[in-house]
Amino acid sequence: MHVQHYHFEVKTDGKGTYELTDQVTDKIDKSSMRNGTVTVFVQHTSCSLTMMENAAPAARRDVERFFEKLVPEDSDYEHDDEGPDDMPAHIRMVLTGASETVPIVGGKMQLGTWQGIFLFEHRCEPHRRKISVTVIGE
Amino acid sequence: MHVQHYHFEVKTDGKGTYELTDQVTDKIDKSSMRNGTVTVFVQHTSCSLTMMENAAPAARRDVERFFEKLVPEDSDYEHDDEGPDDMPAHIRMVLTGASETVPIVGGKMQLGTWQGIFLFEHRCEPHRRKISVTVIGE
Amino acid sequence: MHVQHYHFEVKTDGKGTYELTDQVTDKIDKSSMRNGTVTVFVQHTSCSLTMMENAAPAARRDVERFFEKLVPEDSDYEHDDEGPDDMPAHIRMVLTGASETVPIVGGKMQLGTWQGIFLFEHRCEPHRRKISVTVIGE
Repeated sequence: MHVQHYHFEVKTDGKGTYELTDQVTDKIDKSSMRNGTVTVFVQHTSCSLTMMENAAPAARRDVERFFEKLVPEDSDYEHDDEGPDDMPAHIRMVLTGASETVPIVGGKMQLGTWQGIFLFEHRCEPHRRKISVTVIGE
Repeated sequence: MHVQHYHFEVKTDGKGTYELTDQVTDKIDKSSMRNGTVTVFVQHTSCSLTMMENAAPAARRDVERFFEKLVPEDSDYEHDDEGPDDMPAHIRMVLTGASETVPIVGGKMQLGTWQGIFLFEHRCEPHRRKISVTVIGE
Repeated sequence: MHVQHYHFEVKTDGKGTYELTDQVTDKIDKSSMRNGTVTVFVQHTSCSLTMMENAAPAARRDVERFFEKLVPEDSDYEHDDEGPDDMPAHIRMVLTGASETVPIVGGKMQLGTWQGIFLFEHRCEPHRRKISVTVIGE
């Protein structure tokens, strides 16, 4: 059993979902691990890491619109000094989480047919987001 | 330290919560591991894996009703070609997650008194759901 | 590779967010592990474990107020024999989760600048909450 850490950055150009599945697959290949788990973690509090349907872009747009409505920008937030999209970003992050752990079997992530790993960016402005990938296995 | 993977399927008969605690316990017993963690992961994007109160069926029905109201079927979704329950299923999955990791101490999951591991099925039709259980430990 | 388990309790005095980052850091120091992951898990179904913005208390109050409104106490719950704050607590737990896994590199958790680990207490009365910390690594 070993542990291998990898880091990479994603440039976002504002709100939306950005698929990370290929980058994570690449790190697992680099690790040469055959069996274990991979934990993907975002080092931020205004974007999330989440599994999502990866075939239909319309489905992802519906997810994004749902969170716009569920956590509105025009609510009366106490913490509002970093812009109207800041506090909704923190709340959306709490609702969707910072990490997921996926099993690795025979060198491959055990994702379902339609599952992808996504960065969910909640801020309007472009950001560089740090992603941490930890492979534990043998 | 070792890693052991197990897989099983759950037949659902539509929306609802299905407890998986016994099946996961059984896999840990099979692994003979005494100390470590177990990660339970659903290989789907229209059902979730979540911890929940396991003693009161009424509490689970309240959870199910809450999500029916929070993510309604009759909203104006762009992605609607797979039926009115499809897009709400994907959104509910994003809100509740695909995996949980639970510590194993002395061969037993360290669950609280009322904690159970549940598959949360979001589709109306019966489905066969693939669950992956990964035990890492010694 | 080794696994080390730690347990501690947090006394809450009702609803709110309680930072656990220092306690978790302390357990990692005790484990002397340099590389791996730490999984933090709450053994309860009426409080959550979540990552959150740790610099602005106003931001955390906004998160708390959001969940008060999203999952109201005065809704018509079937399971209501343990007080009006009980069923909302279970639902808020399902929405926010029971565990997070954070990478450890060079003996330190790889948290972002503003990330903290929080117990999110959903009940009104004071409680003693059991937290489990599992370090896997080398």
